[in-house]
Amino acid sequence: MTGTASAPFTADDYRARMERAARAAGDAGLAGLLVAPGPDLVWLTGYAPTAVTERLTLLVLAPGRDPVLVVPTLEAPDAARAVGAPTLDLRDWTDGTDPYAVTAGLLDGDGRFGISDNTWAMHLLGLQKALPGTSYASLTEALPMLRAVKDAAEVELLAAAGAAADAAFEEIRKTPFTGRRESEVGADLAGLLRRFGHSQVDFTIVGSGPNGANPHHEVGDRVIERGDMVVLDFGGLKDGYGSDTTRTVHVGEPTDEERRVHDIVREAQEAGFRAVRPGVACQEVDRAARAVIDAAGYGEYFIHRTGHGIGVTTHEPPYMIEGEEQPLVPGMCFSVEPGIYLPGRFGVRIEDIVTVTEDGGRRLNDTTREMVTVD
Amino acid sequence: MTGTASAPFTADDYRARMERAARAAGDAGLAGLLVAPGPDLVWLTGYAPTAVTERLTLLVLAPGRDPVLVVPTLEAPDAARAVGAPTLDLRDWTDGTDPYAVTAGLLDGDGRFGISDNTWAMHLLGLQKALPGTSYASLTEALPMLRAVKDAAEVELLAAAGAAADAAFEEIRKTPFTGRRESEVGADLAGLLRRFGHSQVDFTIVGSGPNGANPHHEVGDRVIERGDMVVLDFGGLKDGYGSDTTRTVHVGEPTDEERRVHDIVREAQEAGFRAVRPGVACQEVDRAARAVIDAAGYGEYFIHRTGHGIGVTTHEPPYMIEGEEQPLVPGMCFSVEPGIYLPGRFGVRIEDIVTVTEDGGRRLNDTTREMVTVD
Repeated sequence: MTGTASAPFTADDYRARMERAARAAGDAGLAGLLVAPGPDLVWLTGYAPTAVTERLTLLVLAPGRDPVLVVPTLEAPDAARAVGAPTLDLRDWTDGTDPYAVTAGLLDGDGRFGISDNTWAMHLLGLQKALPGTSYASLTEALPMLRAVKDAAEVELLAAAGAAADAAFEEIRKTPFTGRRESEVGADLAGLLRRFGHSQVDFTIVGSGPNGANPHHEVGDRVIERGDMVVLDFGGLKDGYGSDTTRTVHVGEPTDEERRVHDIVREAQEAGFRAVRPGVACQEVDRAARAVIDAAGYGEYFIHRTGHGIGVTTHEPPYMIEGEEQPLVPGMCFSVEPGIYLPGRFGVRIEDIVTVTEDGGRRLNDTTREMVTVD
Repeated sequence: MTGTASAPFTADDYRARMERAARAAGDAGLAGLLVAPGPDLVWLTGYAPTAVTERLTLLVLAPGRDPVLVVPTLEAPDAARAVGAPTLDLRDWTDGTDPYAVTAGLLDGDGRFGISDNTWAMHLLGLQKALPGTSYASLTEALPMLRAVKDAAEVELLAAAGAAADAAFEEIRKTPFTGRRESEVGADLAGLLRRFGHSQVDFTIVGSGPNGANPHHEVGDRVIERGDMVVLDFGGLKDGYGSDTTRTVHVGEPTDEERRVHDIVREAQEAGFRAVRPGVACQEVDRAARAVIDAAGYGEYFIHRTGHGIGVTTHEPPYMIEGEEQPLVPGMCFSVEPGIYLPGRFGVRIEDIVTVTEDGGRRLNDTTREMVTVD
């Protein structure tokens, strides 16, 4: 989260976001929003505690009232230094006192509140007990699109993070793969992301041969061999905004089947990208990519949704998944990442981050989607 | 969390922990325990997903039933490789299906459940909606001492982590402080913790001069000057178990007042330590340390509790705080860390990890508690 320190946002930017969020809460019939440390709090206030502990920190936003940050006394000086702090009324509480009572005093006792997804259950239970008449919905359920539409500065930060990830891929493809462990290639990828400006590396998936058929395999001790397909999926945060890209490379010349599967995934990814334009439902992006894989007879081997949003996290709404009817809006940013996973054999995935423009989509990753062979 | 990979626990150890936890739940009148990714899950199963996302992973423990791990299909292969996995029945769910319905099918619809503190609120809300007749208590509320009593192997892992932190202090005190930024000293501390075997650094507080008067100040750009008191509070995980120690050093010769404040804190820490023995309430450790500081007239400047438990996290029950009547039990491990914070001037804190033995306490940190002067 420290990567957010260099994000170019001002106290006014954070004030505007908090006002917008409170208004959206009112429009959704909510009495307010409760936001614990994490990406929502960073996005709304610029504040990220040095550690998330059992001590309650909670932003309370309510329509027509000034934002309040409930914060442990110990951490109040740090909170006061956040870029968004000038808008915040800090209410600190000391060890031994009841932070839920402090918070309850700020809330409508019969209200319904949106609460950030990752708020600890212990804190939600504390609030439910202090105010039995209140009810709650997760922010993703109540206001799923709160952070989904990025402004121009945010899109450019995401584009810069994507360009850095692309630069890492261009370097890694020049390195030898044969005879090295997945974990070594993964460490190189992490180092390259940092070299190209990432402050935080969230994942460096290196899935070689059969490991590539597990979409969430990270890295293992497997030694990469000539003839392997290798899924490379990596990303993290640069200047507080996320990167996430996947390319699947082949060590030496691929077989006809490997080439065919890669072609199908590439076409599926292209179809998903081409489906992106304002007003189209998220699920249509999934359907477009899935239709290509289904038609080629590999439907049962595409075992995950087509994409997820990205912003101050590498994983957030909107989701490109069957059943998601949210229409795309210019400024939304998300992955398009179909894959085919053949158990015990190999996997292929191709992923770009895409942002919705006024008349279509713009890719924020731009390395070749043709199959790359490595040594 | 990857540090846990090298913890020397077997499938049988994890099976025994899960059985003990399910029994404790039954004894506490609970229908079961629900445990999301985090320290409780690591302790119970050895499993830590590579990333904690919005996708539900949840361990369901119920008295007299086999443990079930609800897990996203994508992550099931990783979960199956956890050391504790042989005891687990894996129930995977696929994107687009409802993980709360899967979980609800495993639960008594009228039961009360303990749920891990850090479970995401969105997951608790999903369960409350799927099973409106259920009720919940945080694990810390329901079974606060679940992980509090460490077995001999765990105490030795904590001792090894403490020894590594001590080794880091012995090195840092030899380095020059004058003219360097807090952030540079903090980076050196982090490097030393890693050099001495830590896989994860959780905090490296360097509070120089007035910054030392904010107990949770981490590191800043302040350049350390001759005449500064400097609070050094650092720790992390080594082989899956935590370290956390504080020493306050002085750059050059201290004034009489600085020496006196340091002496008071040292005596308070000693008094807290001497209060440790089986059967004594946690709050008595706090009272013993606080009495020394109160008697010296600095009571209003000791603004936090005296200590917190440590284990697979660096911050957990039991808490050494007024009102905590839990009796100490051999094998409990926690910090004893009184401090005095003089706003705008300087702070002093001294902290050791202490474990309860059959007849008293044993310190797991052993560097000098006399004031050390540095250059």
